[in-house]
Amino acid sequence: MNKYKKLMQKCINLAKKAQGKNIPNPYVGAIVYDEKENKIISCGYHEKYGQAHAEVNAIKNANGNTKGKTIIVNLEPCSHWGKTPPCADLIIKSGFKKAIIATLDLNKQATGGLEKLQNAGIETVLGVLEKEAKDLNKVFFKNTLTKKPYIMLKIASTLDGKIALDNGKSKWITNEKARLYCQKLRSEYQAIMSATGTILADNPKLNVRLKNKKSPIRIIFDPNNKIPLNYNVFNDDVKVILINNSKIDLPKHIEQISFDGSFDNLFKELYKMNIYSIMTEAGSGFNSELIKNNEVDEINHFIAPKIFGGGLDFIKGLNIEEIENSIKLKDVKIKQFEDNFLINGKIKTY
Amino acid sequence: MNKYKKLMQKCINLAKKAQGKNIPNPYVGAIVYDEKENKIISCGYHEKYGQAHAEVNAIKNANGNTKGKTIIVNLEPCSHWGKTPPCADLIIKSGFKKAIIATLDLNKQATGGLEKLQNAGIETVLGVLEKEAKDLNKVFFKNTLTKKPYIMLKIASTLDGKIALDNGKSKWITNEKARLYCQKLRSEYQAIMSATGTILADNPKLNVRLKNKKSPIRIIFDPNNKIPLNYNVFNDDVKVILINNSKIDLPKHIEQISFDGSFDNLFKELYKMNIYSIMTEAGSGFNSELIKNNEVDEINHFIAPKIFGGGLDFIKGLNIEEIENSIKLKDVKIKQFEDNFLINGKIKTY
Repeated sequence: MNKYKKLMQKCINLAKKAQGKNIPNPYVGAIVYDEKENKIISCGYHEKYGQAHAEVNAIKNANGNTKGKTIIVNLEPCSHWGKTPPCADLIIKSGFKKAIIATLDLNKQATGGLEKLQNAGIETVLGVLEKEAKDLNKVFFKNTLTKKPYIMLKIASTLDGKIALDNGKSKWITNEKARLYCQKLRSEYQAIMSATGTILADNPKLNVRLKNKKSPIRIIFDPNNKIPLNYNVFNDDVKVILINNSKIDLPKHIEQISFDGSFDNLFKELYKMNIYSIMTEAGSGFNSELIKNNEVDEINHFIAPKIFGGGLDFIKGLNIEEIENSIKLKDVKIKQFEDNFLINGKIKTY
Repeated sequence: MNKYKKLMQKCINLAKKAQGKNIPNPYVGAIVYDEKENKIISCGYHEKYGQAHAEVNAIKNANGNTKGKTIIVNLEPCSHWGKTPPCADLIIKSGFKKAIIATLDLNKQATGGLEKLQNAGIETVLGVLEKEAKDLNKVFFKNTLTKKPYIMLKIASTLDGKIALDNGKSKWITNEKARLYCQKLRSEYQAIMSATGTILADNPKLNVRLKNKKSPIRIIFDPNNKIPLNYNVFNDDVKVILINNSKIDLPKHIEQISFDGSFDNLFKELYKMNIYSIMTEAGSGFNSELIKNNEVDEINHFIAPKIFGGGLDFIKGLNIEEIENSIKLKDVKIKQFEDNFLINGKIKTY
C-alpha cells in the first residue's frame, strides 16, 4: 500500500504541472507501472483544457508496453465522450491488469469509469491518498457539483480577531513575510474579490507584485455604487467585474453585472462568466455575509501576535446560540512567518 | 562557542531539576570543565532554598580538580554573603582559569560576581544562551526586580478571540488535549488566580487533575463579596487567598486580604505573602484590568479553529488609538494540539 501511496504522490505532483494552465479542467497525473519489475514504465498528465487526458498521455508514452501492467491515476478515469474519447475504454483496450485510483470523479457526466474497469475484470483499488487528491481538485469538484466558483476567504487579524482599531486604522497588522505570502495566494486564484468598505478605506491595488505572476481578475462588490472610478482597482489593465446596480459608462476593461440580493445567484452568474476560483479580501460586513450565506469553502487566516482589546471583528453578527453551531475549520494546517502565523482550513469539503 | 552553548544547555537542564523545590531561589546549574581534555570533570545544581549554590556543589564534586579549569554556570556567581558564602570567592580560591556565564544576576545584592572574577584575573565569557537562561529564571528576575509575583495570563478562545457566546455559553471551546496541557501549566505555577465573573459562571475547581501533581494555591479576586462559600474553589483542602472587602467568618484554609483598588499594591502584598508566580484563568473584565494596569508578564493563548462571529472578547476596552501601541507578544512560540494550537509569548522580559 505504501508503494501505491508513493506512486500516487508522484501522480499528484505530475498533475500540478498544469496548475493555472488547464482551467476549468481537473488536475490529473497518470503512471504506467510494472508490478513484477517494480518499475515505472511511463508518466503523463493532463496539460491543457481540451487536450489529451493524463491516462492517454501516460499510455502513449508506454509505447505499447501496457499489457498486464498497473495504471495509477489520481482521478477516476472518465467514461464519457467529452472533447476526447473515454479513458476507461482506452485502459481496458490497453490490457491493464490493475488500476489504482485516488478519488472518484464527482462530475455525474464523467463518473462510471471505475465500474466500467471492474466490469471488464480489471482489479481496482480506490482511495489511495484520497484526501490529497480531493484537495488538489477542490476547485474542480466545487465547480462541478455546484456550478459556482470556489471561494477562499482571506483574513489578517490580531490574536483577538480584530482587523482594525475602533478608529479604522489597520496598517499593518501582519508582518512583511505574511503579506508576501498573501501575494502568492492571490496569484493562485483566478479572481480576487473585495467590497465597498475595504476599497473606500484602503484604496488597495489588489494586484500581484511577484515576478512572473499575473494579477487575478478583480471582482468588486459595490451594489450601492459608492466607489469612484478613479480608485486604484479600476486603474490598471487588469480585467474588472463590477457588481453595481446603477447604469454607468465604464472603460472597456470593466464589465458590469448587477446584484439581486442573492449571493447564490451572484456566484452562479460569475461561474457562467467562467470565474472558477475566487479569493476574497474584504472587511467584516462582506465576510459576514458570505459566511451567513454559506458561500465560503476555505479560510486562510493570518494572525499577528498582537492584541487590540477592542476594534473591528473580522466576522460579526452570526448570532450563534450553541458552541457546536460555530463555524468550524477542517483539515487545519499552520504555517509560520517569523512571529506571525497562518491558519488554513476548509469550511466545506467535496 | 558552540561547545560552550552545549555545556550551558547542560547547566540549564541540571538547574531545572530543582523546579518546584527551591522557591524563591533561582534555578542554577554549574559544570567544572577541562578545556585541554575536552572533558566534564563534575556537575552540580542548586537543589533547595537555603542550601548550597550550584557552583559549590560542582566544585565539591570536582574533588580538588579545579586549578586551571573552566567553570560554566547559567547565572552570575553571587558576590554577597546570603545564607551561604559568596560563590565568586570560592571560584577564585579554587584556581579557575575561565568562567562562562549565561546572564548577570539582576538582584542588586547578589550581582558583582563577574567583576570580582575579572579583577582576580579570571577570563570570563558572558551571554552564552542568555535568552534561555533569562527565560529559565523569569520568575526569580521578576520577583527580584519588582517585589511582585510573575503573572501569566491564560486564554482559551476561538479564532475571532471569543471566550463565550453572547448568551454566555463557553463549554468547550478548546479540545481535550489543549485542556490537558492547561492542567500541566497550572501545575507549573505556585498559584492560580481567578475572579468573580468566571467563578460564578463556571463554578470551576481550578485544581490539577494530573497524577503526582499538586494543585496550586488559589487566589480568588472577589472584591464585592459575590461568591458564595459553597462554590467549588473553596471546598477542598487547597489553600485559598480570598481578596474580598467584607469581613466574613472563613474556614481555616482560606486567608482573606482586602483590595484598595490598586493592582500594584495587591501584587506587592501577595509577594509579601510568599506568592512568587501566578497563572490567571479569568474572563474579559479581569484580563483587561491586568493588561491595562501593565501587570502581565506572559500570555498562553489557546486557540480553537472555530469562529463565533460575535460573543465575549478575551480582552476589551483598551481604547488603543495607534497600531504600534497594541499589546505585543515577544519570543513567540507555537504548540499544536491536534487542530487546536497554543501561542505563547512574553509581554515583558527582564
